[in-house]
Amino acid sequence: MNYKMMGKFLSQILFLEAGLMLPALFICIAEQTKKAGAAFAASIGITVAVALALYIICRKAEKRFYAREGMVCVGICWMAMSILGCLPFFLSGEIPNYLDALFEIVSGFTTTGATILKDVEAMSDGMLYWRSFSHWLGGMGVLVFVLALSSSKEQGGGFTMHLLRAESPGPDVGKLVPKMRTTARILYMIYILLTVLNFMFLMLGDMPFFESVCTALGTAGTGGFGVKNDSIAGYSPYLQNVCTVFMLLFGINFSCYYMLLIRQVAAVLKDEEIRLYIGVVLASVTLIVLNIRGCYDTLSETIRHAFFQVASIITTTGFATTDFDLWPSFSKGILFVLMILGACAGSTGGGLKCGRALLLFKSMKRNTRRVLNPKRVEVVRLNGRMISEKVLETTNTYLVAYGVIVILSFLLVSVDGFSLTTNLSAVLACFNNIGPGFESVGPTCNFSIFSGFSKVVLIIDMLAGRLEIFPMLLLVSRSTWRHR
Amino acid sequence: MNYKMMGKFLSQILFLEAGLMLPALFICIAEQTKKAGAAFAASIGITVAVALALYIICRKAEKRFYAREGMVCVGICWMAMSILGCLPFFLSGEIPNYLDALFEIVSGFTTTGATILKDVEAMSDGMLYWRSFSHWLGGMGVLVFVLALSSSKEQGGGFTMHLLRAESPGPDVGKLVPKMRTTARILYMIYILLTVLNFMFLMLGDMPFFESVCTALGTAGTGGFGVKNDSIAGYSPYLQNVCTVFMLLFGINFSCYYMLLIRQVAAVLKDEEIRLYIGVVLASVTLIVLNIRGCYDTLSETIRHAFFQVASIITTTGFATTDFDLWPSFSKGILFVLMILGACAGSTGGGLKCGRALLLFKSMKRNTRRVLNPKRVEVVRLNGRMISEKVLETTNTYLVAYGVIVILSFLLVSVDGFSLTTNLSAVLACFNNIGPGFESVGPTCNFSIFSGFSKVVLIIDMLAGRLEIFPMLLLVSRSTWRHR
Repeated sequence: MNYKMMGKFLSQILFLEAGLMLPALFICIAEQTKKAGAAFAASIGITVAVALALYIICRKAEKRFYAREGMVCVGICWMAMSILGCLPFFLSGEIPNYLDALFEIVSGFTTTGATILKDVEAMSDGMLYWRSFSHWLGGMGVLVFVLALSSSKEQGGGFTMHLLRAESPGPDVGKLVPKMRTTARILYMIYILLTVLNFMFLMLGDMPFFESVCTALGTAGTGGFGVKNDSIAGYSPYLQNVCTVFMLLFGINFSCYYMLLIRQVAAVLKDEEIRLYIGVVLASVTLIVLNIRGCYDTLSETIRHAFFQVASIITTTGFATTDFDLWPSFSKGILFVLMILGACAGSTGGGLKCGRALLLFKSMKRNTRRVLNPKRVEVVRLNGRMISEKVLETTNTYLVAYGVIVILSFLLVSVDGFSLTTNLSAVLACFNNIGPGFESVGPTCNFSIFSGFSKVVLIIDMLAGRLEIFPMLLLVSRSTWRHR
Repeated sequence: MNYKMMGKFLSQILFLEAGLMLPALFICIAEQTKKAGAAFAASIGITVAVALALYIICRKAEKRFYAREGMVCVGICWMAMSILGCLPFFLSGEIPNYLDALFEIVSGFTTTGATILKDVEAMSDGMLYWRSFSHWLGGMGVLVFVLALSSSKEQGGGFTMHLLRAESPGPDVGKLVPKMRTTARILYMIYILLTVLNFMFLMLGDMPFFESVCTALGTAGTGGFGVKNDSIAGYSPYLQNVCTVFMLLFGINFSCYYMLLIRQVAAVLKDEEIRLYIGVVLASVTLIVLNIRGCYDTLSETIRHAFFQVASIITTTGFATTDFDLWPSFSKGILFVLMILGACAGSTGGGLKCGRALLLFKSMKRNTRRVLNPKRVEVVRLNGRMISEKVLETTNTYLVAYGVIVILSFLLVSVDGFSLTTNLSAVLACFNNIGPGFESVGPTCNFSIFSGFSKVVLIIDMLAGRLEIFPMLLLVSRSTWRHR
């Protein structure tokens, strides 16, 4: 293990985090919320001190860096960021319990949006901004951000590649351009552009400035933290529709936007994952509209709520305009399945990902044919490209690991004694980075009901879900620490 | 497709089925239940007529037979058996709806034990016997039974091998002895012996003769149809414990009993699947006892109920001594996971199977290490033997198909509008051949609540679960019917 290299990189991450807390501090100063401001100042101080200490210790690092170290590094960075990132909540006393504060910030960074807060509106603006900003930062990836900022000389190629691969969602990372750093920059440029567009459309609908900023940040990261107790329900239909459209846009593979920018429109239109994603959204909305007709006054209201909720769940955002826990069970069943499916690979959304589901389904079909005809040679293709057996194997392994983690977490959380649906949907909502589940963790409820033990389990689930299991699995694997 | 060979074999199956209805007919005559007797006589007549017609048409069959045809043949045989096997229920009017009768017999043959009957005790003895006997026949496999009865000259080696492989539960079929027919005979000898032992132990506890027969047949097949409305709850603690022990015994891989017979005790003790199975049972019982303490008067009663329910669910039998739907949610959570896990491969139990879970877990661990170190060559071993990549691939494919079927069925069943837990547990209980689920399909309820459409879905699930997916998947696959 190249601990020094990891430590050096971690120090960069923490410097960045401290810097990113500054806007929240300015908000506190502007709003004259002294306690919150002091908490941010103290948190920035502590974070800088830790980063500085790490930098001094790890300054002289070797350049050699392997995939294993990339994975472990990502896991450690995310944990360190969370441990320090929740300090403002805790130090200000706005979330008096440290574990709750940690839950909240992990939920933020992992773009889950599950909250332990009973009254969001009681929080100071600085805290609300930091909550929403954590979604934005976690959505595209903190490490990717650092790579985008870094100069080309600074890091070796293997280092950046391994980190990007470990942090990016989806079964396979495609480089947009030969240089990893340029890829990271393009991704962030698209991300910022879409976020600004989202913000502008919200402003056009007369949403207040601060709320527009926070909502745009939360939508971009497909996070789900809102600034209102009723999430998005209190806003006008126009604003709700803007959210629907942008949630869906942030659930699409960002490389598609790059393709559009370089005018490869045909490739995007033929993309099998996008087609599956759009098909599932349209089919789900249609079925839900048929199922919940009569629940709302007009057809347009029904369609609006159905579209919003489908977009919110499939992109794993977790905003709500209505209490979908009151919908009939067929509609709830569809949302339950969408919770597992998730958005496109390479987007800011979580879940299993449409691309991975396609690979699993295609390899299932191929292998079933092989049962009949064992000597048959047949490759699995996605968008015309051959998928290597290695990727298929990893995807299948992912599914097994997914199942094992969900089952174990479900059992552990069950100790608290809530209903089966509550427990299962809480685990799925956290692991797939969605936010709300059903029954006691439904859209009008929150996660404060759980014991400290269950919160720790759910925190681990959120991290494992966001980092796509392997970095977390490697952190607890003996073989990771055995080798030198 | 060698349709004639398949037809010829199917005619044998149906002749056998007609013959196996005779004892039920005799019971009806002895009990002087005329309507039921007439129904059995008519059913036997119809079944023999169909079998005869098939035999005449398909008499001159070619011997060539491929794996594909074996799989398809198994699927067709099970469906034909069910379509004719439910006639007694329907013709006697004891189950007035044909679809309900079909549900009941499929539930019997697949050893599920889910019933649509509100009042089991209202059935005539002939029908009760036929219900319980269907479990026994389906448990070890009808086709295996025919193979065991057939003379050695009659069938080609490929034919028997393909059939046995398609019908036997578990990821891999081990031949006990070089000859397939002898293997089938040994398996049935062990099966009969254990069933008789079970019957004797029940008789020793003063259970009436007829009830002992039915309970032993239902236990042996890990089915779960009882002859009382309260399942096993009304019997003495001794009888309940006898059921617990025999359920667990029938959940063990039958090749282990053969190993014990030829005195290879060490191999059985070291068997990783058995160890997992026993470990899971003991751990589950311990945790449940700790969780439900206080629900019953004495510790011994608590242990008895916990042991019974764990054995009943992990072996996918589905008997009940208590309404476990009233237990705290941690205990229900454990049972929920056991529903998915299931018993050992090569037993009469259903579910994913412990052996398959072991393979999935081991290949997951291996593949995670490979993510770190792609060039590393490492094989997966079970009981010291190397497992081929082909078997691992099929096992992973099985998991994907399992997930796809559960999710699709869950969505389809949701249309009826019952709770999420009801729908999910109903699908899992049918697909894993268990019987009772939770909430509206809990141990004190039944499946009559569902619509005809949902019953069809659940019938397909039961068959797909018992035949381990692939035969059913191949029946609906285009490529099966394309080739000549």
